Amino acid sequence: MRLHRIPGTIAAAAIVLLLLANGACANQPKYVFFFLGDGMASSQIQATEAYLTTINGGSATEAVDLLKSKNRLNMSKMDVVGMQTTYDAHALMTDSASSATAFACGLKTLSGVIGMDDKMNTSYKSIAQLAHEAGKKVGILTSVSLDHATPAAYYASVANRGYMNNIATQLVESGYEFFGGGGLVAPNSPARDGDTSNKIFDILDKNGYKVLNDRESILSLKEDPRDRVVCINPVLPSSSAMPYAIDKPAENLSLEEMTEVAIENLYSDRRDQGFFIMVEGGKIDWACHANDAVATIGDMLDFDKAIGVALDFYKKHRNETLIVVTGDHETGGMTIGHATTAYKAYYEKLEGQTNSYEHFGMNQWTEHKANNTSCPADINEDMKALMADAFGLNYEALNDYQKEKLEDAYDTSLCGANDNSDAENKFLYGGYEPIIVTITHILNENASIGWTSYSHTGVPVPIFAQGREARLFAGFFDNTDIAKKLAKAMDLGDLPVEKEDAYQ
Amino acid sequence: MRLHRIPGTIAAAAIVLLLLANGACANQPKYVFFFLGDGMASSQIQATEAYLTTINGGSATEAVDLLKSKNRLNMSKMDVVGMQTTYDAHALMTDSASSATAFACGLKTLSGVIGMDDKMNTSYKSIAQLAHEAGKKVGILTSVSLDHATPAAYYASVANRGYMNNIATQLVESGYEFFGGGGLVAPNSPARDGDTSNKIFDILDKNGYKVLNDRESILSLKEDPRDRVVCINPVLPSSSAMPYAIDKPAENLSLEEMTEVAIENLYSDRRDQGFFIMVEGGKIDWACHANDAVATIGDMLDFDKAIGVALDFYKKHRNETLIVVTGDHETGGMTIGHATTAYKAYYEKLEGQTNSYEHFGMNQWTEHKANNTSCPADINEDMKALMADAFGLNYEALNDYQKEKLEDAYDTSLCGANDNSDAENKFLYGGYEPIIVTITHILNENASIGWTSYSHTGVPVPIFAQGREARLFAGFFDNTDIAKKLAKAMDLGDLPVEKEDAYQ
Repeated sequence: MRLHRIPGTIAAAAIVLLLLANGACANQPKYVFFFLGDGMASSQIQATEAYLTTINGGSATEAVDLLKSKNRLNMSKMDVVGMQTTYDAHALMTDSASSATAFACGLKTLSGVIGMDDKMNTSYKSIAQLAHEAGKKVGILTSVSLDHATPAAYYASVANRGYMNNIATQLVESGYEFFGGGGLVAPNSPARDGDTSNKIFDILDKNGYKVLNDRESILSLKEDPRDRVVCINPVLPSSSAMPYAIDKPAENLSLEEMTEVAIENLYSDRRDQGFFIMVEGGKIDWACHANDAVATIGDMLDFDKAIGVALDFYKKHRNETLIVVTGDHETGGMTIGHATTAYKAYYEKLEGQTNSYEHFGMNQWTEHKANNTSCPADINEDMKALMADAFGLNYEALNDYQKEKLEDAYDTSLCGANDNSDAENKFLYGGYEPIIVTITHILNENASIGWTSYSHTGVPVPIFAQGREARLFAGFFDNTDIAKKLAKAMDLGDLPVEKEDAYQ
Repeated sequence: MRLHRIPGTIAAAAIVLLLLANGACANQPKYVFFFLGDGMASSQIQATEAYLTTINGGSATEAVDLLKSKNRLNMSKMDVVGMQTTYDAHALMTDSASSATAFACGLKTLSGVIGMDDKMNTSYKSIAQLAHEAGKKVGILTSVSLDHATPAAYYASVANRGYMNNIATQLVESGYEFFGGGGLVAPNSPARDGDTSNKIFDILDKNGYKVLNDRESILSLKEDPRDRVVCINPVLPSSSAMPYAIDKPAENLSLEEMTEVAIENLYSDRRDQGFFIMVEGGKIDWACHANDAVATIGDMLDFDKAIGVALDFYKKHRNETLIVVTGDHETGGMTIGHATTAYKAYYEKLEGQTNSYEHFGMNQWTEHKANNTSCPADINEDMKALMADAFGLNYEALNDYQKEKLEDAYDTSLCGANDNSDAENKFLYGGYEPIIVTITHILNENASIGWTSYSHTGVPVPIFAQGREARLFAGFFDNTDIAKKLAKAMDLGDLPVEKEDAYQ
């Protein structure tokens, strides 16, 4: 034993004594955030950071700028990183229902099943429900509909994610304090009780929920919080989901803004049990299904800014806050490289895309199609101008193969057919509008982003954590362990926990 | 302060006192392993574990088996996991020279440059050289040639990875105790000194190196270790690299066996400084360039078994051993999902592939081409039988698009042309033999594995660690930090360290 080490050692021992004496009753974080990027894995993160580098005046060809803090996402700068496997009970590629059941309830189930096991006999409580029972306020936020698979796993148990009025009824019965983001898929459908006069919106009201759906009244919650509130953005272009972040209308709240409102609404400086807030970046997944990198990156940035809001809160409540960020699976088979560009990246080519594939389809393309009805047809100057205007794509600069693919897609979108085999068209377009998905494919590959699928893929996903008990999320583990680790962090006992009064 | 906690707390404090007193002089691991899977990222790891699940009697459609320990790789079961960014000084997609310089020397440089900065003015020491100077024995193992970019970064500084005789001369001058795996690209070329009578093999001999190149004499090192030895596998089909693991001839040593030999040769039960061993799975990258998933998985498995050998050593020297495993970059844009299979995986389809694209090209295809010389030609029964025999691919079961792609590729491989545009052919074949790369594309997509590139891609790569100081490798960091963390673990000072007597 080296004697000159002793004084420092004694000081360290004293600190340990103090920490142990104090820590036994204060290990659990009071404020817990779980951020879920639907469809988000390493490629989505890296593409977004490379894009940030480019729009911040750097260049993807000067990659050293990628190291600069301003070009890094909040999530990748967090203290703790782990990896998690995403497969479900019976498939390498999970869906969002089974993955959400894994990280909300701590058990593997089948694709399409929410909050139940793979036999669909038993229902399980989510960590949100357990946290709520333990006295925490709960907020559930998403950029898609509030009754979509991922948010639903935090309050509902159903054998099929498509049972929308059942899910919505369980939302109402949850008693959670805050819901925000998108809307409900069928708000005027009958509630689950079979009484067709009881619509979802009616029972929300009966259960003390205030539904707000304009920007001003939602923002007013920051000053005048409510006990039970459902905040629905006014503009929801499809499937009751928020528009893509790059299409955001001024009257909507971003996911970042909605997160600010949720925190202000749920936080209290009185002595209480704090809160559990789940925020889903749900349209990252939808953009990846459609193979639209710029829409993906736009929603990644909004999602990451929402994480930034939580980090600001953490800075004020450092010893009481835990933030965990992960994805439920990768979507689209997105890669950071493409055969046509080899070792070069050209992210500056993405800067010309001004709206999502969805917005283009609902607006510019719909108008163009109405004005161009004679078949067969070649890509005309009007269409070339549209591609240049909405996607920054210079048709004349494309190679022969790209022009051929655009022409085939245009024939199909405008006239319903081309001369490819069905198998080739299925590969080229998935279920998407051929001309639009071909445009984003070409734009993306020119920037050096590839896609191999229109579905989820099975690659492991990174997980990031910051704050009290963040250390639990280091290492390589299964997605079911996320719920178990969150339960441990909040002292909610062992998972999974059966529901006593399960409704199937 | 809760008084009843004190007794336990005092015990904890006593343990801390003991650890601090003891740890101050014994923190550094004596035995350090660095395993580098060239081209290995999350997809390569997940594909290999899904394949393992299948060949171990499970099924990729019963994904829950993926959780079983026997279906997991050694690397993904290690205690510590992190993520590292792989871009180099001027590109999102690094090459193996600049990435090896990053994790060997701790600095970013240009693609193609080894052990020098991006101005190519200054040469830097690798952690292997620093460890050697500190008294550790050094072993450098790779499945490609010993003078290839990754191993070279541990002993050489050159402005261009193509300066093979310069690199080989620096190998000889390193004085490292063990080299093993592949051979040298130009063993009979003149050494760097300009005296054309000094061949590389001659100066190896002059510098006390024994070159062994048969299985028996290499294995004999386990009983009779040597001070300086170069172990070259007898069968090296191309570029002085070992064959793919799935093509391994009996007279060769696998990477696993070569790692056993290296450990036995370098380990001594006398009091010494221990060793630093770098093992590269170099042909994982080559298989991914060629978009051959089964060859990739075969080399992943051999690489992971070599890690298993190190873990066995760790179990005997637990407090003195550090093992770090990572990849230098992803290659091929490999994904765990494909548009043609959507949410289903069929890894059992990969089991029919009996040799690599390379072996098939050098043997079955070469023979078939010699026997089929009339053009134009359709895929005949002989070719269909070859695909079934070597790849388990049933031609008749393919869809129209796949048959069309095979026919186009066959025309090109056999007759030099098809009716596609050059741009389409570049995308479809890269620089590979059209018919062979089309076969592996189709086989892989049928199993649900996609590829988007024939080059490296820019996705971050996981890093795993086990043993003493493994904790340093948790978190999200840059590839240059790997060298710095290894230097810290071995107490080798701050990096980068300039060479005094640099040769350019």
